[in-house]
Amino acid sequence: MPDFDLAEHPHRRYNPLLDEWVLVSPHRAKRPWQGQEEDVQKDARPEYDPTCYLCPTNTRANGEKNPDYTSTYVFENDFGALQATTPEGAYTKGKLLRAESERGICKVICFSPRHDLTLPDMEVADIRKVVDLWELEYLELGKIDFINHVQIFENKGAVMGCSNPHPHGQIWAQSAVPAGPARESKTQAAYYAANKRSLLQDYLELELEEQARIVYSNEHFVALVPFWAVWPFETMLLPRRHVQHLGQLRTEEKDAFADAIKKLTMVYDKVFNVSFPYSAGIHQQPTNNDDHSGWHLHMHFYPPLLRSASVKKFMVGYEMLGDPQRDITPETSAERLRGILS
Amino acid sequence: MPDFDLAEHPHRRYNPLLDEWVLVSPHRAKRPWQGQEEDVQKDARPEYDPTCYLCPTNTRANGEKNPDYTSTYVFENDFGALQATTPEGAYTKGKLLRAESERGICKVICFSPRHDLTLPDMEVADIRKVVDLWELEYLELGKIDFINHVQIFENKGAVMGCSNPHPHGQIWAQSAVPAGPARESKTQAAYYAANKRSLLQDYLELELEEQARIVYSNEHFVALVPFWAVWPFETMLLPRRHVQHLGQLRTEEKDAFADAIKKLTMVYDKVFNVSFPYSAGIHQQPTNNDDHSGWHLHMHFYPPLLRSASVKKFMVGYEMLGDPQRDITPETSAERLRGILS
Ligand SMILES: O=P(O)(O)O[C@H]1O[C@H](CO)[C@@H](O)[C@H](O)[C@H]1O
Ligand SMILES: O=P(O)(O)O[C@H]1O[C@H](CO)[C@@H](O)[C@H](O)[C@H]1O
Repeated sequence: MPDFDLAEHPHRRYNPLLDEWVLVSPHRAKRPWQGQEEDVQKDARPEYDPTCYLCPTNTRANGEKNPDYTSTYVFENDFGALQATTPEGAYTKGKLLRAESERGICKVICFSPRHDLTLPDMEVADIRKVVDLWELEYLELGKIDFINHVQIFENKGAVMGCSNPHPHGQIWAQSAVPAGPARESKTQAAYYAANKRSLLQDYLELELEEQARIVYSNEHFVALVPFWAVWPFETMLLPRRHVQHLGQLRTEEKDAFADAIKKLTMVYDKVFNVSFPYSAGIHQQPTNNDDHSGWHLHMHFYPPLLRSASVKKFMVGYEMLGDPQRDITPETSAERLRGILS
Repeated sequence: MPDFDLAEHPHRRYNPLLDEWVLVSPHRAKRPWQGQEEDVQKDARPEYDPTCYLCPTNTRANGEKNPDYTSTYVFENDFGALQATTPEGAYTKGKLLRAESERGICKVICFSPRHDLTLPDMEVADIRKVVDLWELEYLELGKIDFINHVQIFENKGAVMGCSNPHPHGQIWAQSAVPAGPARESKTQAAYYAANKRSLLQDYLELELEEQARIVYSNEHFVALVPFWAVWPFETMLLPRRHVQHLGQLRTEEKDAFADAIKKLTMVYDKVFNVSFPYSAGIHQQPTNNDDHSGWHLHMHFYPPLLRSASVKKFMVGYEMLGDPQRDITPETSAERLRGILS
């Protein structure tokens, strides 16, 4: 019998941040694909689109007119999933039917007035302005009494449910701490209590030793494919220094963050020579008053593409009912991404 | 301020089976959609397709020839994500890099020799043969020493990553108990220990009282939209009697299961007058030797469509980073599905 080999044999990998496992099937990367292919979006967009509800000076669905903004622009989502005015209340029947009203604020952030750009096309200095706005919004929203968590994210590309190619992201701030960050709170707090160091700092140290999953790094930030990555080209972007939230980043760290976002998204666009779709988002400490010493700020990138510009990974049957599953290994993905930079 | 109303205001609902919450935003069902639309599959397929690797007498990629089968047909997946021959082993570095080899068996089940059918097109008696095969496979695979969990599922439709329209499902049987069923084990065991009744039996009783989320029921099975459903038209199919696995169903219960599958999938096809895509799967007790008294067999249906045959719900940004989220309420969905039957 051959020796067990991570690059050859089916195995499970543990995700210590979510306390979850992912099934990895390296040998399966070779199977043929006859299934659904996505339309590849043609990317010849005008700098300004008179029909776009995010372009400067245009009027949105609710009749409001966007200002003639020249860098970033933020406004409350006209169709937010959460509302600040939701009345308190609950519905309970026995122990098994339980609902609770939920208050929150949903915002849209335009990254640029230019309709034809995406993050990798923007100057680092302009991405830096997006980082500044993220920080400001996190801090301001976090101060509101009924807000306990601020989720900043971007859905990029039609395949990720994005209905407008104008470069933009979203913020959903709310009373409850959602499951993802709540689990990360738990695992990070337990690790910190036991080791007096942040889980991600120790993890980053291991990764910097091994190098196999590092994609890009600068003085203050590192982009890597997590050992437990689920999506084919999933990455995590994290500061070398143990900070809990954007408000603690120093000027040079924010510059480095903007630089790393630019490099990583540029690399992505070169994988299949297509504007690379993904959902990305920043996880940082909840804004409630709990002890968050273990929290280590990071940004997740979840891109769906697997084999080409038009063939994505489907997280369906087994994944919905059992565990997440991937074919290509994180090491192979990282090598491919890193190769683009060199 | 108006009173809190489940049908109007954003709220969270608790899923006692997974110990998770879902964010529900009823008011958002009205927002306009300008995003990606799926191709609607034309459904004029021949009874037999000489290029289909699942049709009787055809040769598969690995050179094997399918028999001239006349009802169901099961074989080992030529590109299985799991393999029975995987050598044992592990890779560990510190507490943060952990991988374990994983053994398993992946099978494909053809539901019918007819290339042009799907479950709702089949006779109840023929669906019953599928149920029998599911039972047999669950019991036989479960007896293998290294198999501790047997996941039976179907990905239907190209949008669910299904690459061949020939009616078929899959079985992934493996050593580890995946996260979904592992959580359901935990919640059901805790409930059973506290109440000496199955969580789903008590839940079913509440639902039968309220009626609002019931879609279809016969003497032995009930199809309902769970109070905590995530997907727009998600349903759960469960036996009225508290049984742990398919092997415990009586003859008349298996007939009723086949009947309920037929009715539910027929209803689905009428929602948007299109062959309704979904991932569906059976959750039943793991096949290891733990005490599974609390387990209550059930089948989940996760269909992605939201507004029309071509517009699906995207589980992206917020959902990947935070919590699952839905717009249309479970009660509205159930009413719509139920209405199709009357
Ligand atoms: O093996 P199949 O049917 O080709 O593959 C399909 O179902 C699997 C199990 O849900 C998924 O992992 C794949 O992403 C999907 O394309
Ligand atoms: O609000 P948007 O951008 O229209 O909506 C998009 O992102 C949301 C948050 O991830 C998802 O709930 C929606 O399914 C998706 O279409």
